[in-house]
Parts: sequence; C-alpha cells; structure tokens
Amino acid sequence: MIELKVDLAERAYPILIGQGLLGQPGLLRPHIGGRQAMVVTNKTVAPLLLPKLMASLGDVQADVLALEDGEQHKTLRTYAQVIDALMHKRHNRTTTLIALGGGVLGDIAGFAAATFQRGVAFIQVPTTLLAQVDSSVGGKTGVNHAQGKNMIGAFHQPRCVLADIAALATLPERQYRAGLAEVVKYGVIWSADFFAWLESQADALERRLPDALAEAVRRSCVIKAEVVRRDEREQGLRAILNYGHTFAHALETLTGYSQLLHGEAVAIGMATAADCARRHQLLSADAVQRITALLHTLGLPTRMPEGLDNKAVLRSMGMDKKVVDGRLRLVLPERIGAVRVTDRIDRQALAQAVAAAIGHAAA
Amino acid sequence: MIELKVDLAERAYPILIGQGLLGQPGLLRPHIGGRQAMVVTNKTVAPLLLPKLMASLGDVQADVLALEDGEQHKTLRTYAQVIDALMHKRHNRTTTLIALGGGVLGDIAGFAAATFQRGVAFIQVPTTLLAQVDSSVGGKTGVNHAQGKNMIGAFHQPRCVLADIAALATLPERQYRAGLAEVVKYGVIWSADFFAWLESQADALERRLPDALAEAVRRSCVIKAEVVRRDEREQGLRAILNYGHTFAHALETLTGYSQLLHGEAVAIGMATAADCARRHQLLSADAVQRITALLHTLGLPTRMPEGLDNKAVLRSMGMDKKVVDGRLRLVLPERIGAVRVTDRIDRQALAQAVAAAIGHAAA
Repeated sequence: MIELKVDLAERAYPILIGQGLLGQPGLLRPHIGGRQAMVVTNKTVAPLLLPKLMASLGDVQADVLALEDGEQHKTLRTYAQVIDALMHKRHNRTTTLIALGGGVLGDIAGFAAATFQRGVAFIQVPTTLLAQVDSSVGGKTGVNHAQGKNMIGAFHQPRCVLADIAALATLPERQYRAGLAEVVKYGVIWSADFFAWLESQADALERRLPDALAEAVRRSCVIKAEVVRRDEREQGLRAILNYGHTFAHALETLTGYSQLLHGEAVAIGMATAADCARRHQLLSADAVQRITALLHTLGLPTRMPEGLDNKAVLRSMGMDKKVVDGRLRLVLPERIGAVRVTDRIDRQALAQAVAAAIGHAAA
Repeated sequence: MIELKVDLAERAYPILIGQGLLGQPGLLRPHIGGRQAMVVTNKTVAPLLLPKLMASLGDVQADVLALEDGEQHKTLRTYAQVIDALMHKRHNRTTTLIALGGGVLGDIAGFAAATFQRGVAFIQVPTTLLAQVDSSVGGKTGVNHAQGKNMIGAFHQPRCVLADIAALATLPERQYRAGLAEVVKYGVIWSADFFAWLESQADALERRLPDALAEAVRRSCVIKAEVVRRDEREQGLRAILNYGHTFAHALETLTGYSQLLHGEAVAIGMATAADCARRHQLLSADAVQRITALLHTLGLPTRMPEGLDNKAVLRSMGMDKKVVDGRLRLVLPERIGAVRVTDRIDRQALAQAVAAAIGHAAA
C-alpha cells in the first residue's frame, strides 16, 4: 500500500492506494469519528463492492443509500435524497458519510457531507479511475444545474481517500478510458516526465496491469495533492487543473450530460485547448500532435460531436464559472509539462479552434 | 455610526451599526469586489427599503430577487430559486449576494452565496432586530428540512454587515419583540451587567428609542462577535449561543414553523431551559424568576403552546443537531451571565420542565 498525504494543515488527510484495500479491515475505521456512518453508493457499484466495504467497518452502525448511477442524476434532487435519508435514519452531526462510487457519486455525497448540519465527516472510496486520480482528491463537491455543470457546491475535504486499484478491473471499457484522460492531463499541466512515461506505458495501461495502474494513480495524486496544497480554494494556481475543462463543460451542457462521459469531454477539451494554444502561438504543432496522439492511443476522442453549433459552444463557455467578471479565462499549454491561465484570448483563434474541433473548417 | 470588527483572520469583517445607514452612499460599495451583484430580498421588505439600498450601490450592476416572506419558505426549494436567478441572470463567481431582510432571508441568501459556484461574496443588510443581533453575524447559513430546522447549511462569513437601526421603526410589533428575545439571551449567557441594563431599559426598548436600540444592538453584536471569534465552526464555546434553542427548534418543528416566530420560540426555550437548570440544582429560583420576568416585560411568551404533547417535544429534541453521538446536550444557565453546555441531563427533570412549560403539571 502507498500512502500519500494531502498537506492542508488541520485538514490534512491521507490517500491510500493499493491492490485489494477494500477488503482490508481496519483501514477506514480510524477515520470514522463517531459510531454512525452512511455509505452512499450507486446501483451499479453496490453489488460489486458494497459487501467488502461493509465488512471492513467493524462496530460502526452503517446505513446504506444506493442512488441511481449517471451524470444526469447529479442534481439538487438527488442531493436532497441523501439529506432525506440522513434525516430519516436520524443521523446527527457526528456521522460520517462514505462515498463508494465514481466521481458523480463522490461529488453528490460530498456536497451532502458539506451541508448536512453545516458539515459532517466524509470519506471517499473512489471506484473509477477518474475518481481515483481526480475528483476524490481536493475537496470539491457539488451538483449540476440544468444550465451549467458544478454550478452548486462547496469545498469540503475528506478525512481519507481509499483508492483500491482492484476496483478498476471491473470498470466498463469506456469509463476506464475516460479516467485516463485526467491522467494525461497531469502530464500536460505539470510533468513532461510523467507524460513521456505515459507514452511508454500506453500498452500496459491498455491492459490495466496493476503495477502500471498503481503508478499512474500515484503520480496523478501526487500532482493533484501538490496543486491543491498550494491553492486549496482555487484562488489562482488550482485553475490549471481545469485544463480542457472549460470546453468540456460546454460540451457536457450542450449534450445534456448523457452523450459524453466527463473524461471523454475533457479529452476533447484538452485537444481543442492545445489547438487553441497553437493558434495563439503559445504551443508548438509538434506538442499538439503528441497530446492528440497519446489521447488517441488511449482510445479517447479528440473531436467534438458532429452537428454541434460552434456558436452555441462559445456561448456556453461564456457561462462557465471560470469566467472572471465577464472575461473568459482559459488554461493553455505552453509546452508539455507547463500551462498558463490567461484571459488574453483571441476570440477569432478560439472560434477557429472550436470550429476545427467540430469539423466545420480546416485547421 | 459604530463600527465593530468580527475578528476572523483572513475572513474578518466589519459590522456597521447606526441610524439611517441604508441611505448613505459608499458604505457598501467597498465591500463589493466585482461589478455584479444580486440583491435578495422579500416582498415585505422590498417596498420599504429596496430603493434606498439600490441607490447606494453606485456603478454596480445589481439584479433583484424578491422571495416570499416567512419561515415556511426557508426551504431547499426557495434556495433553488436563488440559484436559478443567478444562473438566469448569468452571474459568475465574482458576483456578490446582498441579503436585504430578516433572519430567514439572510439564511437562505447566505446558503446560496456559500454554494453558488462553491462560494461567492456575501453582504448582510439585516432589517429585523433578530437578524441584526443574531443571524446576520457569525456566518451560519442554511435552510430547514421538513423534519428539522437548519438541518441543511454551511458556514459562510459575510464581507460586511450593515445594521440600520432606522429599519426597525417599521417592524411589526410581534417581530420586534421576537428580536428582543435574542438580546436577552446575550445577557443570560455572557453578561450580568448587560442583563441588568436591559432590565433598566425595558421601557426605552419598548418605545424603540434609537439610542437604546443602537446600544442593545451594539452590545449584542459585541458578545456574538467575541463568541464567534473564539469558536467560528461551533466546535465548543459557540454552542452557548444555542441557549433556549434546542427547545425552540422542537417547538418550531412541531408547530410547522408558522405558529411561533423564531424569537418567540427562543423566549419559551430560554424560560424552559432556565427552569430545567433549576431542576438540576444549577440555577437559583430567583434567577429563573428574573429571566422569566424580563421576557414578560418585553412582551414575550414563556410557556409552550397549549395542546402540545410533551413526549413529542422530547422526541423532537432527540433529533436536534445539538445531539452528539445520540446524547442530548443542553445549554443550562448557572447564574445570570454564565451558562454551561452539558450532556449530563436528568431525563426526568427535563421531562418535568417541558411538562410544566406546557402546563401539564405544577412546577
């Protein structure tokens, strides 16, 4: 087992990474303060992993709530279901919420933990690659609004993140690949070395070899934890984690959160942002090519769904919460391993990058 | 104008208290970071005070949302209306929410500010006595659940609190008196001197004389700010502010949030808690008498509504969020000016105090 620390003073917490951790008794118990807990999971994950988790909770009185699976359920309505369950089962402010599932589940359960009785303890047990390398670390929680993704939420750090690599073995192919998109992101924004390692390990990752997976999760979490440590509340640096995400959120909003998985939208967003950076003379064509090629090798899309209206994409980006005082800000790569956050956007270059990604115009 | 400071390191903020502050241009503008703001108010307050507030905002592009008035509207549903309005008017994370109204309004708007895009700036302009001395200071925000008061919420400190004493002149009698209940609370929990001052000023307060009012608001806010400074997140000391509130919340839940104003429920709760403290041999009968007498003099109720079932009250208290790991904790006065928070509750003494307050048994 690997143990990383997210170093946030009194809110510091460990990330435990390893093969078969879910079955190990005693790993979670020290992070549960009271005697009550609520495991929030979904109907896809529960049959596969819930019994193992429950068996590891020892003397904790644990209730279970299984939500519907899918981004389209990441709403205030589903959030209210979690609160209702906590009230119905008479949980009090010493309870601990345990999220067993992917990113959507962790975001909803985390927002419930952030706001039930103004905040209760929270543990993340991410079961998808995307959740293990991204959404379970860093304390962002929330739900979507019909007009925008993650528009409602709170920062609420977990007490512990337990990432069991074994859980990834049963992930559907598409979900697994979607998670790899966020892994690639860490290479582009932070580490050319990690990016090169990913290029060299594409085959091992394709085959989900446990050692390669554990290493990919570990290196991703190290980078995420470092960025979050330096900027917990997204005042500055943390914005680099949104590389590709402004485009991705627009795509997800326009396609109703159902056509594309988040990671797929991020892959398209990263490729589009890279092309946009090239059109701003920030990034070399060669680097754009390496980013696009790695995404392709890992089976990820890099072009927007056909039939999208590029004006609608641009409009939706204007509504994105990365807009400061009405000005659009984008995370653009300068080279592999380094990005800048900038509001000096050439509207025409942006429009061309979007049009090219949809296939409306030649690059 | 009096300016107090709530000393919370990087979240420190001023409380401005005075007669006619709402009409003064330039008081709020320095606390609005961006160019966008949303004034959240209610349909009772808006006709009286909104024009003055709007005139003082200068170059800020301010939208207005007027909610229904009343505790029964302090729900997730109303909260969602605020979020919808922010989305509809395309507010971004640099916006500022300004709450113009009483405690209910401030709690809802504050929770929206705490969670819109994971937190935006917030200003409190409390227009009731209760909101000026209590709910607008300290960062508690939230809404009720059908099964319990304030069960959903977040800590989110405002950038500024502006308490215009002139706004109190138009308050309906009942609401005004209800606010005095929280003022009395500060005397009981913190300052025998302030309690004695209130006894001496009952007539001036009854007539809403501006000087007496400003002093009552100032001294209340000084105490509240000091308690919040020492314990922002209610880990310990801050619980003393809940004196009377465990009883009050049970009463409000059982009567559907509509029969009693919050301050009225708190007055009954404080009288019942004082009697309960006497039955625990913590408080003298003389002190109970002074507390009850001051509440009476100020026109506040001290007995529970007839027809309530005392078992239902006790059960509802068990669901209160001041319960730690299944144990009920109460704030009980030891003398005027000092309380203790204790979970060493004699169930029989508690049951007797509740029964006596309903009139089921002789004291």
